[in-house]
Amino acid sequence: MQNIISNRDWADVLIQALPYIRKYTGKTVVVKYGGNAMLNDELKQAVMEDLVLMTLVGIRTVLVHGGGPEINAALDRIGKEAKFIDGLRYTDEQTMEVVQEVLAGKLNKEIVSVLQRAGGKAVGLCGIDGGMLRARRLIRNNIDLGYVGEVTSVDSSVIRHLLSEQYIPVISTIAVGEGDDIHAYNINADTAAAQIAIDLGAEKFIQITNVPGILRNMDDPESLIPVLSRPEIQPLQRDGVISGGMIPKVECCVLALEGGVRRTHIIDGRVAHSLLIEVFSDKALGTMIL
Amino acid sequence: MQNIISNRDWADVLIQALPYIRKYTGKTVVVKYGGNAMLNDELKQAVMEDLVLMTLVGIRTVLVHGGGPEINAALDRIGKEAKFIDGLRYTDEQTMEVVQEVLAGKLNKEIVSVLQRAGGKAVGLCGIDGGMLRARRLIRNNIDLGYVGEVTSVDSSVIRHLLSEQYIPVISTIAVGEGDDIHAYNINADTAAAQIAIDLGAEKFIQITNVPGILRNMDDPESLIPVLSRPEIQPLQRDGVISGGMIPKVECCVLALEGGVRRTHIIDGRVAHSLLIEVFSDKALGTMIL
Amino acid sequence: MQNIISNRDWADVLIQALPYIRKYTGKTVVVKYGGNAMLNDELKQAVMEDLVLMTLVGIRTVLVHGGGPEINAALDRIGKEAKFIDGLRYTDEQTMEVVQEVLAGKLNKEIVSVLQRAGGKAVGLCGIDGGMLRARRLIRNNIDLGYVGEVTSVDSSVIRHLLSEQYIPVISTIAVGEGDDIHAYNINADTAAAQIAIDLGAEKFIQITNVPGILRNMDDPESLIPVLSRPEIQPLQRDGVISGGMIPKVECCVLALEGGVRRTHIIDGRVAHSLLIEVFSDKALGTMIL
Amino acid sequence: MQNIISNRDWADVLIQALPYIRKYTGKTVVVKYGGNAMLNDELKQAVMEDLVLMTLVGIRTVLVHGGGPEINAALDRIGKEAKFIDGLRYTDEQTMEVVQEVLAGKLNKEIVSVLQRAGGKAVGLCGIDGGMLRARRLIRNNIDLGYVGEVTSVDSSVIRHLLSEQYIPVISTIAVGEGDDIHAYNINADTAAAQIAIDLGAEKFIQITNVPGILRNMDDPESLIPVLSRPEIQPLQRDGVISGGMIPKVECCVLALEGGVRRTHIIDGRVAHSLLIEVFSDKALGTMIL
Amino acid sequence: MQNIISNRDWADVLIQALPYIRKYTGKTVVVKYGGNAMLNDELKQAVMEDLVLMTLVGIRTVLVHGGGPEINAALDRIGKEAKFIDGLRYTDEQTMEVVQEVLAGKLNKEIVSVLQRAGGKAVGLCGIDGGMLRARRLIRNNIDLGYVGEVTSVDSSVIRHLLSEQYIPVISTIAVGEGDDIHAYNINADTAAAQIAIDLGAEKFIQITNVPGILRNMDDPESLIPVLSRPEIQPLQRDGVISGGMIPKVECCVLALEGGVRRTHIIDGRVAHSLLIEVFSDKALGTMIL
Amino acid sequence: MQNIISNRDWADVLIQALPYIRKYTGKTVVVKYGGNAMLNDELKQAVMEDLVLMTLVGIRTVLVHGGGPEINAALDRIGKEAKFIDGLRYTDEQTMEVVQEVLAGKLNKEIVSVLQRAGGKAVGLCGIDGGMLRARRLIRNNIDLGYVGEVTSVDSSVIRHLLSEQYIPVISTIAVGEGDDIHAYNINADTAAAQIAIDLGAEKFIQITNVPGILRNMDDPESLIPVLSRPEIQPLQRDGVISGGMIPKVECCVLALEGGVRRTHIIDGRVAHSLLIEVFSDKALGTMIL
Repeated sequence: MQNIISNRDWADVLIQALPYIRKYTGKTVVVKYGGNAMLNDELKQAVMEDLVLMTLVGIRTVLVHGGGPEINAALDRIGKEAKFIDGLRYTDEQTMEVVQEVLAGKLNKEIVSVLQRAGGKAVGLCGIDGGMLRARRLIRNNIDLGYVGEVTSVDSSVIRHLLSEQYIPVISTIAVGEGDDIHAYNINADTAAAQIAIDLGAEKFIQITNVPGILRNMDDPESLIPVLSRPEIQPLQRDGVISGGMIPKVECCVLALEGGVRRTHIIDGRVAHSLLIEVFSDKALGTMIL
Repeated sequence: MQNIISNRDWADVLIQALPYIRKYTGKTVVVKYGGNAMLNDELKQAVMEDLVLMTLVGIRTVLVHGGGPEINAALDRIGKEAKFIDGLRYTDEQTMEVVQEVLAGKLNKEIVSVLQRAGGKAVGLCGIDGGMLRARRLIRNNIDLGYVGEVTSVDSSVIRHLLSEQYIPVISTIAVGEGDDIHAYNINADTAAAQIAIDLGAEKFIQITNVPGILRNMDDPESLIPVLSRPEIQPLQRDGVISGGMIPKVECCVLALEGGVRRTHIIDGRVAHSLLIEVFSDKALGTMIL
Repeated sequence: MQNIISNRDWADVLIQALPYIRKYTGKTVVVKYGGNAMLNDELKQAVMEDLVLMTLVGIRTVLVHGGGPEINAALDRIGKEAKFIDGLRYTDEQTMEVVQEVLAGKLNKEIVSVLQRAGGKAVGLCGIDGGMLRARRLIRNNIDLGYVGEVTSVDSSVIRHLLSEQYIPVISTIAVGEGDDIHAYNINADTAAAQIAIDLGAEKFIQITNVPGILRNMDDPESLIPVLSRPEIQPLQRDGVISGGMIPKVECCVLALEGGVRRTHIIDGRVAHSLLIEVFSDKALGTMIL
Repeated sequence: MQNIISNRDWADVLIQALPYIRKYTGKTVVVKYGGNAMLNDELKQAVMEDLVLMTLVGIRTVLVHGGGPEINAALDRIGKEAKFIDGLRYTDEQTMEVVQEVLAGKLNKEIVSVLQRAGGKAVGLCGIDGGMLRARRLIRNNIDLGYVGEVTSVDSSVIRHLLSEQYIPVISTIAVGEGDDIHAYNINADTAAAQIAIDLGAEKFIQITNVPGILRNMDDPESLIPVLSRPEIQPLQRDGVISGGMIPKVECCVLALEGGVRRTHIIDGRVAHSLLIEVFSDKALGTMIL
Repeated sequence: MQNIISNRDWADVLIQALPYIRKYTGKTVVVKYGGNAMLNDELKQAVMEDLVLMTLVGIRTVLVHGGGPEINAALDRIGKEAKFIDGLRYTDEQTMEVVQEVLAGKLNKEIVSVLQRAGGKAVGLCGIDGGMLRARRLIRNNIDLGYVGEVTSVDSSVIRHLLSEQYIPVISTIAVGEGDDIHAYNINADTAAAQIAIDLGAEKFIQITNVPGILRNMDDPESLIPVLSRPEIQPLQRDGVISGGMIPKVECCVLALEGGVRRTHIIDGRVAHSLLIEVFSDKALGTMIL
Repeated sequence: MQNIISNRDWADVLIQALPYIRKYTGKTVVVKYGGNAMLNDELKQAVMEDLVLMTLVGIRTVLVHGGGPEINAALDRIGKEAKFIDGLRYTDEQTMEVVQEVLAGKLNKEIVSVLQRAGGKAVGLCGIDGGMLRARRLIRNNIDLGYVGEVTSVDSSVIRHLLSEQYIPVISTIAVGEGDDIHAYNINADTAAAQIAIDLGAEKFIQITNVPGILRNMDDPESLIPVLSRPEIQPLQRDGVISGGMIPKVECCVLALEGGVRRTHIIDGRVAHSLLIEVFSDKALGTMIL
């Protein structure tokens, strides 16, 4: 059903949105999307539409995706148990092969297809392409996690070339080893997204999550903290306001900011078109960290 | 007071407006504005804001203005009676001097100032500049109207150069004679605007008026004809639906369309931001003729 | 009657002039012309021809004009007495309106017409256009002069764009207020011309006057000082050689020189084509200050 | 061990090769490589080195790969039997998923890694990316083959962009449906390679096989036919000289030639560096069809 | 001694010359100079100055020179008699060597030196350079003239490149044989100059001679024919007005005109700076054929 | 007879040569060739072919030539004895004329012809052209050598322009005097070549000689020193390993290296295609000094 909007509202939205459109035209925005936030098909469709609309008005948009649930399902299909150590997936040779096939072969190309049906031009890549992400084996607390890598260098040239031709690059976070090591490594998608945003000199880094942003009081959705500056983070973490799964998300924002990204956002993927509204208005649909 | 707009409305406006923004980015829109529609200061301010916003997202915007009421006031001040023959101002030497001074010296520069305060970059010109409008004495029904001219050639090069540098050209419709005749001529602003739109290869030609558009029944604002194709005009004129002051407005639209302009509009300047809504939505705030 | 010139003279003129032509091709020359020097129609015609010829060989030529006598006549017509305080015109609201109409509406466009008939491409602007001249109210000796302004910033971008397209920009020296003050201000044309020359990085700033230049002995036309360097000015002023109306002219030259203009000239507008000869020869038809 | 080559041989190779290098610099060469020819690791390494060297001297090189044996192995791992109808793989939903994962997720990225270790810049894509290959379900003899597609349109824009930036595009031949059908389809790699070569306006289309080229007498390696023109094909096919697996290879060459590709080659992948020698000499290491 | 020129004359020369300067800026002028006209050192100096001044204002100037008297002197020095058949120099192997050495080695470089001292940038070439002039042995009336050639193709690319970099190309008219024949041939300078003018698409082709132009009555210098159109030539030739050495000069003009050169001139090299006056005025210092 | 080269050799040469081709594409190589090394016609032909092939793959190649033996022959022909002082040719006025005619008029153009027949585009210049080489009279040990000059400035602009258009500039080492001195001077070709290489920022400077390079033991061709660094030179000179005619050759290399040329070579012109092999392999056919 057609939504009836008054002339006044039309004009007001445009008057507020046009300066944002101008502001971000030609700028780069890196969006991290994945995991549970990506499971609802209707919301996923809305995110893809938003990305296409952003591109339409000249924003250089990059999508970095994860795919944990899908990988688990695939491992399950071949009867292999997913194994986690300290929250990181233990990745043996066979698991790595599955990770690569599911992320770079299946999910990545599915997203490309959806973006294209929504009217965009998209190209799917992983960190191996163009030597974009180089990594070495991640050793944490002396525990061997297999082919889990930490990024040692980022070269986003191929992303830049595609952005210049108005493509939406869609990136799976698999890296290639350094030097002669051409083994593939599994990379945490949030971190990789932040590192790519840095290398691109992005204006914005947006994580689409399945939470409303940072709440001062977890039980009160009205207690959303719309804007947070870096010095405010540590006290909030100490007070337990920033805790659990929110900690690594905030850390990725800080990483991006320190690398020169101008603004970072943790937004609520459960609100339809939250991405579009975030970019083109001053409405708070999550927390901005700067 | 801040107007509260729901997320859904925000998203809907943007989703509908962004494709229009993309469609008109880089395209040329010629707006004719003047006479009584220009007298209300608040509405005038809204029109200027709309022009600036259009420029902001890359639309090449040209404003052609008239100024009948102001000219009458100026003639009045020097104790000279305005004289009209068949609806055209009789323009003797002294009147012409006043017309030129008021249009090109006073109104034109005032509009430039307002556009600039609204954040735009504007440059005021008249048809003499760059030899933009050349004219000869208009002879109608063998009656001498003095320095009233009809345009014999249009050269919009200087407008194009300014558009390429993101200026909003503001044009007073005074022309210079042909060849060695360097006398100035007073030109009907609606016609001149249509001719400039043709020479620029404009995408749209918009006349801002003080009527709601073409009404099938003049007493019923609900009877607006939102879209009209050229073959439908003559029957409507025969039936008296198009009559009076609307006839020359429609004729200017037809002139523009025959010269290659893609879409022409007669919109209601009494609705705030009707220009913005017209360009960036499919809402009907007047009549489109194509 | 055709002037017969010998082959030897032809060759000599060309041999001397061609290096000057080369030297100034692509360079910017700002010419101030106005007041009494502009009243003789034949000499005015010669100046316009000179400007067109300069443009023809690639000199970027800007004309800044005044119009005191015409303004007086216009004020006279509406029965308003011109009022001067310390040599500056007292400018109330109504006077300012007349100034703007006469300068930007009438004289400016007349000059454009004459330049175009002489084969040039000209565009008339005032300091309001493109925000070229911003001003604040001039307070001198605690006396209120009304809308007389002093320039606070110059932005000659629009002049540059027009020069790049081979137009001759013709400038009326009316400024717009700063920030939200969109009132128009009357600006001294000599000073504004010097300031525009500075902002353009002009090679030359030429004032066309109705005197032969600086004479060592006012009664002896043979006593012309052809070249003057800045340190020589003060002694000459002390000795009364530079006096009266020549003082502000020389001050404008010094202003331009200090702002980086390479050469400044006060030339005799009563000698036909003195502008052309000045630019393309080493003949002294006035005083060069450097 | 270092191979000792005489000065005369050095000079002779260079004198013969340099004109070929010049001839193909800036030209596009599409190489199809896959199946059994790709199984020997040492030869595969040599092919990758050749591709990198070709790129080094400015040849725009595209690699299209297949992967039949790997797909069979993957299906085998999940206990699914590969099923062929008339030589075409029957591709149900699950098989298609495996095909996509193995080709686009695993093999494609492995090849990219090897090319990069050999000093090249490579990017792996499949036909879904940038809407490169669109397909519809292939119906042959009324038999349903599942998600086996035939290409309905090729858009190689993204390949062109990457070639312009000196990347080696590596293509898996998976296509996306037309219009709203975003299902993936399995495409015959030889045919897709020929179609891409046509769309790119390639100079050469080279199929690397595991046969010595077309032999007049299958048992006599000396009976190689080095050059074949199109009219000669049908008689040879009638006489059984072109038969079996060679028929579709020759058909792909004819398809490419009819689409405007200048030269097509069937070369022997079992001779190390046959690709390099083919491009940079007039030695016959297979059959050229033109 | 300084020549005193009145202001009026200065202005008149400039007013007349500037449009010519503009007209020829960026255009190509080919000047043929040589033989007896080149013997007077002072006049030669004036020609070189004129060429430099023409270049100064952006005219693309090419000088083609001959050198008959110098060749005779050189042959004389080695005790070899100059031998002419039908006005063409019989050129055996040894003579050809002398011709090449004197023209391309000695005279060409001397002219380059003089042009450079006059402030120009010059480069000396002969028809062998860049394969500019290809020739075959000229056979006339079955008489063998040795290495006298007729031009079979002109490739003025190298001249164009040098003109684009503001050099004055100075050309000796020696050609190289066609195909494998790399012998040098002696070419008539007038004809070669016309052919080069054609290949360059020159605006003007000027022959500097030691006659006043075409005189209707050879004994009356006042009887100069300033302008001649092609149809007028044949009658004048029949009447003996065009005769002797003037015939081949006129034929070269016709050749150039038929090849697309706009204007051709035969001017008097004995009048100082006749070249400069010819190009930058409408004075007649010779005959223009068009 | 066709030289039969095995596939392995073909591939090996290409694999080794292609990186060199890439390395030197777009780089400048200055080759000095002349004197006795140039006398064998077959070897000369091979050198010219090598230069053309180098140009073919984008190397910017400059040939500087000498011509001592030819000059002696020419002097002989006019009965003038060649006279040397300290190894330098005593050059009186007449000798200088002969030098210029033979080098710039005869040899230079012959080389241009041969290069063009070999498929190249060549242009012959001497140091006078474009003011490339300026010189003053060389005074050594107070002995007057006549018109022997030492270079005081190099301006290789004209060479650069020709290289940009893919020409092979061929340079005779005659210079013009400084300032008003337009006399021609005879310049040592080796030194001039080094100086031109410096001004061009050449990557390589190669002297083609008639010796195998620097031998540790003059009688043992196996004792070639393939690579020499600057500090090793003095000891070798002290030990007599570098002696006689090799000393000035090595000095020219050092001059070039100190001026910024990356690598310098003294190679054996008696081995066919030694130039090609030197540039495109790591084979030692002479001595590299760096």
